[in-house]
Amino acid sequence: MTDILTKRSNDHAQWYNDLVLKADLAEHSEVRGCMVIKPHGYAIWEKMQAALDGMFKATGHVNAYFPLFIPLSYFAKEASHVEGFAKECAIVTHYRLKNDPEKGVVVDPTAELEEPLIVRPTSETIIWNTYRGWIKSYRDLPLLINQWANVVRWEMRTRLFLRTSEFLWQEGHTAHATKEEALQETERMLDVYATFAEEWLAMTVIKGMKTASERFAGAEETYCIEALMQDGKALQAGTSHFLGQNFAKAFDVMFTDKENKQSHVWATSWGVSTRLMGALIMTHSDDQGLIIPPKLAPVQVVIVPIAKNEEQMAAIGVYVAPMLTALRAKGITVKFDNDDKRKPGWKFAEYEFKGYPVRIAVGPRDMENGTVEVARRDTLEKQVMQSADIADKVEHLLQAIQDNLYQKALAFREQNTRAVDSYDEFKKVIEDGGFILAHWDGSAETEERVKKETKATIRCIPLHGDKTPGHCMVTAKPSTQRVIFARSY
Amino acid sequence: MTDILTKRSNDHAQWYNDLVLKADLAEHSEVRGCMVIKPHGYAIWEKMQAALDGMFKATGHVNAYFPLFIPLSYFAKEASHVEGFAKECAIVTHYRLKNDPEKGVVVDPTAELEEPLIVRPTSETIIWNTYRGWIKSYRDLPLLINQWANVVRWEMRTRLFLRTSEFLWQEGHTAHATKEEALQETERMLDVYATFAEEWLAMTVIKGMKTASERFAGAEETYCIEALMQDGKALQAGTSHFLGQNFAKAFDVMFTDKENKQSHVWATSWGVSTRLMGALIMTHSDDQGLIIPPKLAPVQVVIVPIAKNEEQMAAIGVYVAPMLTALRAKGITVKFDNDDKRKPGWKFAEYEFKGYPVRIAVGPRDMENGTVEVARRDTLEKQVMQSADIADKVEHLLQAIQDNLYQKALAFREQNTRAVDSYDEFKKVIEDGGFILAHWDGSAETEERVKKETKATIRCIPLHGDKTPGHCMVTAKPSTQRVIFARSY
Repeated sequence: MTDILTKRSNDHAQWYNDLVLKADLAEHSEVRGCMVIKPHGYAIWEKMQAALDGMFKATGHVNAYFPLFIPLSYFAKEASHVEGFAKECAIVTHYRLKNDPEKGVVVDPTAELEEPLIVRPTSETIIWNTYRGWIKSYRDLPLLINQWANVVRWEMRTRLFLRTSEFLWQEGHTAHATKEEALQETERMLDVYATFAEEWLAMTVIKGMKTASERFAGAEETYCIEALMQDGKALQAGTSHFLGQNFAKAFDVMFTDKENKQSHVWATSWGVSTRLMGALIMTHSDDQGLIIPPKLAPVQVVIVPIAKNEEQMAAIGVYVAPMLTALRAKGITVKFDNDDKRKPGWKFAEYEFKGYPVRIAVGPRDMENGTVEVARRDTLEKQVMQSADIADKVEHLLQAIQDNLYQKALAFREQNTRAVDSYDEFKKVIEDGGFILAHWDGSAETEERVKKETKATIRCIPLHGDKTPGHCMVTAKPSTQRVIFARSY
Repeated sequence: MTDILTKRSNDHAQWYNDLVLKADLAEHSEVRGCMVIKPHGYAIWEKMQAALDGMFKATGHVNAYFPLFIPLSYFAKEASHVEGFAKECAIVTHYRLKNDPEKGVVVDPTAELEEPLIVRPTSETIIWNTYRGWIKSYRDLPLLINQWANVVRWEMRTRLFLRTSEFLWQEGHTAHATKEEALQETERMLDVYATFAEEWLAMTVIKGMKTASERFAGAEETYCIEALMQDGKALQAGTSHFLGQNFAKAFDVMFTDKENKQSHVWATSWGVSTRLMGALIMTHSDDQGLIIPPKLAPVQVVIVPIAKNEEQMAAIGVYVAPMLTALRAKGITVKFDNDDKRKPGWKFAEYEFKGYPVRIAVGPRDMENGTVEVARRDTLEKQVMQSADIADKVEHLLQAIQDNLYQKALAFREQNTRAVDSYDEFKKVIEDGGFILAHWDGSAETEERVKKETKATIRCIPLHGDKTPGHCMVTAKPSTQRVIFARSY
């Protein structure tokens, strides 16, 4: 299968597209900009969902569900929000079809909606319109709600997982009595995302704040986690927004405090999406195919029997039965692939290409010697092991793979993060990709100029790390700290 | 809170609506026909999802995700399907808004789609259009895929959970090499639904087949589970369809068998939806509010401290700590509600109304005596118990509640299922509600006449039970077995 995958060094974009298609993660549908998430891809997304959902609940959040459709007029209520979101969207205008004797089934022109409905691009407006009925008193706060949903943003140029018209995501929408509490929530959820990225995706991220021009439409402050892909481009992997009282004011959401005083409610929203699938792929995978960190692998271990006949197949079944039991007892997901419609060679190629972390092969000689052959996907190393305590060994191996992937990603980012002090140097270095730490004068003009001249944007103003002041690499005006520039997805 | 709930005997429909709203399960949104599922309602739905998803996976199914939008032309490919589904639907015709100097934000008339997109009312068409690319050989079969998704069917008269324009559901879509295998799958999934209804919802259901006129649009056979609500009306709780080769032919999905012969693929589809929330509510709840079977309760046990001051509250916290640990060690979900913004009386009313299966109250006297007060929601009985082995007692109590709810539902259905032999008797008995077992001549005319004259429909032709032949109660023509008539939701 590897011969059908373009090499990363030849054409990274083509490699990515090949891999997503051929590893059965997703494909384009015939519906413009919409993807089909195939079972192998969806199973990884389900693991992400389960991990994130657990972390949201552990931080006091509950799930709910709000309508898919948002009346057009809602968007007009928050001025910057409509500018940012409602322009390129799917608009429902009719609610009935009819038979036309000549054209067949057509839209019934008599069934036009009085007010068009927008398929949600994000749900702040409909949720805050609903919160007006839910929040009356300080006793109703904080309101910590998350929604798992599909959203639609009409995209002209799409890439599987990275930019599609419809995508899956979660959106948290919280309401608070004070500004401080809302800010704390914004930062808490950014931390949750960063922890998830590091511990589950084995991806290293930088936590920071967006500049004004990159902020979410309607937010007072947007926090983000930024990751670096293998081709040197940055990818925004999650955002957490402090919305101030903007939506509470637009939708008239007030609460009575303990002193019986009325105030507008403070808000946050935060989200990650199926875009994380793209991040996962571009962080770890190689020219041999997909690599999935063990904690997110739908199946962590696959056992492939190498049998010449039915008798051998049955004997191998008996031989591996206690291993299956021991592995499952440790909570390891394992598949024994004794499907006789496919040959072992096909299976080896398939599981390697699809990123199964550990493959165990068992043949007649293994049964004689009490061994198995264990291959790890990340390094492609193979080793013959005694089968006796195989579950312990595999458990350690899975942890070692998870750690190795994280360390590799961290080393890659460190090698590809450079401090640059002159704009001339910046223009050269940016061609190599990677994160560039540089001083910036804080103005939108300078930010825009750099973007226009180099295609690099300010990914974030890092929350942690070096805070030494300096002078803008472009204008030499004062700068409070270095910010991160990169070309990005 | 009970005073704000209409009594069932006064007005069952109003009782249901009051309960859904006041138990914070769901509410109407301002978007026509669309509901907001509130956290308490969504948490129950999540439990249903998790249980069903586990059962689907245990029977070999995997999840995937297909686009929200379906091109209009797809519906025209399966003739009966478009008649059944595509008439009342949400239609996307435009993809951009623009600013109008007079009217504000409006739909941009220049951004009209070449082909209108239908918001999926069900996904057979787009999925079978996709399967064409996935299925080539017998090696690719069976394909056992499920999707968790939102769907939209434009409804004029809506009721929370029971009939809404947008609802959440799962839809299984499987592809098979033979008719026999597809039929087996159809029945297997019906069994999964029946088991889920009985073991989790504590609801008793009758498995059967729909008559031709009640079949899913595009199916050759529709199997269903039918439940009886407390007001004597039937509710279809799940359906499983044998689709024959209809969709494979409409979308040209062929496979090569072992003998290198090409054939059309055989199909099934099956689904349950948030309608099950309505079934759950109308099966068990009472004039005091919601009753949730313990296996689906988001929180199974709530502990309410009765403290006069902070010191007592702290002491109760220490007193209950080992109980919390012991309960959680058994996998029981428990909440210790020490929120000082609400009084115990408010909490008692709240948890009873919202259907928490077990409530434990702890006051100063309990601490002196080493006791707690345990109340069960289903019977409203209270009992003072020694706190020593409380986790064991509560575990048994939860099981007893689950069993009691099922037995009550079963007894209710048995009391409200009658065999009737004459149409005159039928017309009288139908006014009392319940299931009526009667002979029917198998004709659509008789079925339609009964429906028109009595508002009763044939809920199903039962798969099991009495198969004695007889004579149609209306026409006296031969009948192979009794079928179930009822008025329904």
